[in-house]
Amino acid sequence: MTSLPITRADVEAAAARIRGRAVRTPCLEMDALSRIAGVRVFAKCELFQRTGSFKYRGAAHAVSRLPESTKATGVATHSSGNHGQALAYAARERGFPCHVVMPHNAPRAKLEAVQKFGAHITLCEPTLTAREEMLAQVVARTCSTVIPPYNHVDVMAGQGTMALEILEDVPEVDAIVVPVGGGGLISGIAVAAKGKHPGISIIGAEPVIANDAARSKATGICQPSTNQLTIADGLRGALGSLTFPVVQKLVDQIHVVQEDAIARAMRFSWEQLKLTIEASAAVGVAVAMSDAFRELAQEHKWRGVAIIFCGGNVDLDHLPWMK
Amino acid sequence: MTSLPITRADVEAAAARIRGRAVRTPCLEMDALSRIAGVRVFAKCELFQRTGSFKYRGAAHAVSRLPESTKATGVATHSSGNHGQALAYAARERGFPCHVVMPHNAPRAKLEAVQKFGAHITLCEPTLTAREEMLAQVVARTCSTVIPPYNHVDVMAGQGTMALEILEDVPEVDAIVVPVGGGGLISGIAVAAKGKHPGISIIGAEPVIANDAARSKATGICQPSTNQLTIADGLRGALGSLTFPVVQKLVDQIHVVQEDAIARAMRFSWEQLKLTIEASAAVGVAVAMSDAFRELAQEHKWRGVAIIFCGGNVDLDHLPWMK
Repeated sequence: MTSLPITRADVEAAAARIRGRAVRTPCLEMDALSRIAGVRVFAKCELFQRTGSFKYRGAAHAVSRLPESTKATGVATHSSGNHGQALAYAARERGFPCHVVMPHNAPRAKLEAVQKFGAHITLCEPTLTAREEMLAQVVARTCSTVIPPYNHVDVMAGQGTMALEILEDVPEVDAIVVPVGGGGLISGIAVAAKGKHPGISIIGAEPVIANDAARSKATGICQPSTNQLTIADGLRGALGSLTFPVVQKLVDQIHVVQEDAIARAMRFSWEQLKLTIEASAAVGVAVAMSDAFRELAQEHKWRGVAIIFCGGNVDLDHLPWMK
Repeated sequence: MTSLPITRADVEAAAARIRGRAVRTPCLEMDALSRIAGVRVFAKCELFQRTGSFKYRGAAHAVSRLPESTKATGVATHSSGNHGQALAYAARERGFPCHVVMPHNAPRAKLEAVQKFGAHITLCEPTLTAREEMLAQVVARTCSTVIPPYNHVDVMAGQGTMALEILEDVPEVDAIVVPVGGGGLISGIAVAAKGKHPGISIIGAEPVIANDAARSKATGICQPSTNQLTIADGLRGALGSLTFPVVQKLVDQIHVVQEDAIARAMRFSWEQLKLTIEASAAVGVAVAMSDAFRELAQEHKWRGVAIIFCGGNVDLDHLPWMK
């Protein structure tokens, strides 16, 4: 049996390292969602995390593992979204320079957020190839250390820390629903949660038009992403070499949802739950609102489920339900 | 010395009566707001309360005090907003009929919300006189018991229950900021909080264009409301005969804020705090974001302040920052 890239002990060590810096986000019961899902639903409120998404956990953990000498060279990544902000924030905490390669068509709000945390931004064409090439140039010039958004053991272990908090705060959680993009979040959570409670179910949530994780799991072969157009822009990435084996082994099911269901779940969360989640987080809510999930919860007699409300970075001038 | 209409013991009795029915809402630390206010700020998240606002506490308490025979006649109120929803919900829990008089120009979302909880709606002209006359007719016809939105001891005591929770959850709170409309919320909180900690400061928050409470306190005479146009539609009412004496005696200061500051605070809360508060709640946030408040907090060396995030019922298609 192949061993996985991270263990429960890695996640526990990560939790100790980021304690007092990452927000210990609340896990709040969501009655309006529970009524729809037919099971008690708890929202792990990572939208309250520093920089507005769970990404801070992984970035802060990865940065905490670097030697002090990184002050001279810094860290780098390419990102059009939450990882860039999180890395910029975590780097600034240690006084490290941070370089973020961003596509020139990234929303101004995201550019400003990364800039606000003191990162150096390099713009590039909006393709994965262009981003990777530009990042390579930046690294060659600065000797900075690349902290990728998900395919990295320290990042994965950092994201997993929230599972330890969920199980401590809500012992009756029998399943965790996790949005899947590159798989850093779900693999960290799966390792930590199953390490503590082998019987817990880990359910991935993915847009049907960006279902590479579901297809990878079904075929046993890591599939590339095929569609970049989902409104859940944080979930456009494909699984990586380190996250795929964890998803393959420890994730029980991946549920896919349509774009309109994601938009409806987002609006429902804003109106009924009073939480300004972003579309990527709404993918998990959309799964919890589906008939398939309701049946699954009944079938397994789950006492409670946690949904990862993974982020809340939104542009109030451009929302899915606006004309 | 005139005695006040409610005591701390009344609030404690109310807390016991609504326990297990009202949500024990969390009091969450808001770092982004703390940085601006220069003091640790905690949000009492009443937007997570049943029916989306604190109004459920008072309504549920008032309804709990009625005899079972009310089943035959029901309860009634006039309301264009949160109190109508809250009373409808609380009445339905006990199987009481509920009659709500609403202005015919009330937003459809609010009409639907009241209807959703099974209340009978009677439409009237959008003036206070028309509302009161129509309510009198409904009561004459149905023999129902009127539960007014704030000028009622059981309602005031019910709203005060959240203060007991705040002091239990966050012992370092030295001041509480409370939006003021009719004064039911702030008088309940003031009685409960000062009853437990006489040294705690109670700060009212009011739109400057609907500053009847500030003027009432300054002049010592209960002033009528003069302006109905603030975006904080929940704060348009004036103090009542029962709430005014409490505000006069126990509220330390009332701070007023401009309409544009309310809209900015609302948008800030959505973007940075990830909470979809309504404009009335944003009035408290706007106060906390003001220079005057920052100086006050420093002067008094407050360790922490709680802001009442009193409600989150919003119409996503009509927001203050939309063109």
